[in-house]
Amino acid sequence: MSRPAHRRPEYHKINKDLFVLTYGALVAQLCKDYEKDEDVNKYLDKIPHPFLHHRGYGIGTRLVEDFLARSCVRRCHSYSEIIDIIAQVAFKMYLGITPSVTCNNSSRTEFSLILDKNPLVEFVEELPAGRSSLCYCNLLCGIIRGALEMVHLAADVTFLQDTLKGDRVTEIGITFLKKLDEKKYRRKK
Amino acid sequence: MSRPAHRRPEYHKINKDLFVLTYGALVAQLCKDYEKDEDVNKYLDKIPHPFLHHRGYGIGTRLVEDFLARSCVRRCHSYSEIIDIIAQVAFKMYLGITPSVTCNNSSRTEFSLILDKNPLVEFVEELPAGRSSLCYCNLLCGIIRGALEMVHLAADVTFLQDTLKGDRVTEIGITFLKKLDEKKYRRKK
Repeated sequence: MSRPAHRRPEYHKINKDLFVLTYGALVAQLCKDYEKDEDVNKYLDKIPHPFLHHRGYGIGTRLVEDFLARSCVRRCHSYSEIIDIIAQVAFKMYLGITPSVTCNNSSRTEFSLILDKNPLVEFVEELPAGRSSLCYCNLLCGIIRGALEMVHLAADVTFLQDTLKGDRVTEIGITFLKKLDEKKYRRKK
Repeated sequence: MSRPAHRRPEYHKINKDLFVLTYGALVAQLCKDYEKDEDVNKYLDKIPHPFLHHRGYGIGTRLVEDFLARSCVRRCHSYSEIIDIIAQVAFKMYLGITPSVTCNNSSRTEFSLILDKNPLVEFVEELPAGRSSLCYCNLLCGIIRGALEMVHLAADVTFLQDTLKGDRVTEIGITFLKKLDEKKYRRKK
């Protein structure tokens, strides 16, 4: 089942519920395995996949390869442009939603993605008892950070609001850690 | 996030890779947790989802509710018809593929779904060392059996061939355990 690098994979879609339910089963299993919420959060943020060709890579790094190959996004010249592509192209492509974007500081390095509706929690009524620090959707942070790492951009990505914790919306905060150095910013082929 | 029964959910699609990678992470975690392949297989076959509204339900039972609500399939009068709907409507809807179908006995209670390509194993090179009895895709068997249970049909569902074990195709065997009793066969609303 090896996929040659030059072959552009077909853009397959599957039913969202299958993913959302499988993701829920993974979170549940991790809650059984790890006592501390922080450990579950850490795992979700950097889900390894030992069966992948590139062992040790997280899901984010794997997805961004496909994304860059498929989306034909232009080179970005600012963090704002990058955030817009994450919101309008990547979220749309992978989760079928388009979060709104806010910029949170004057130097334009801190942004928020605001999800009115979070498909990942569709079947989840509430966080399980004793799991109040669980970031149920931390996979999303890991994917975004992993994807940015692949294009040599260091960022902190965390949940600032979460409907599972009683907030009205889900808000993912993205803080870029360096001034954008265009020379360093290369798209991985 | 409760979904009223009368509301027909939008038919959302997401990117297949996200599901395939998340499923792989779940299998990997289960392999870490359970020493015996049979225990992993059993778990995958009947994935519980403790965060769901209907606690204790497996993924198959949850999916079939949506499927019946959305697909508007007609009432089936034979096992052959049911298998055709699983192959042509359900597999297409949920995994984007259409397996071919064979009937394996003269009383028409044993069938096979044959998948030339199995999207679930796309990124998997081989079974991990020491895991030769792992049915990596056992989720599929659980979903099919769970779905059939929901319409009051008892069946054995197992992998007969698996490309991860060196077979040329993936073959899922479905054996119905009773003669079809039309009166008992009701679609759950």
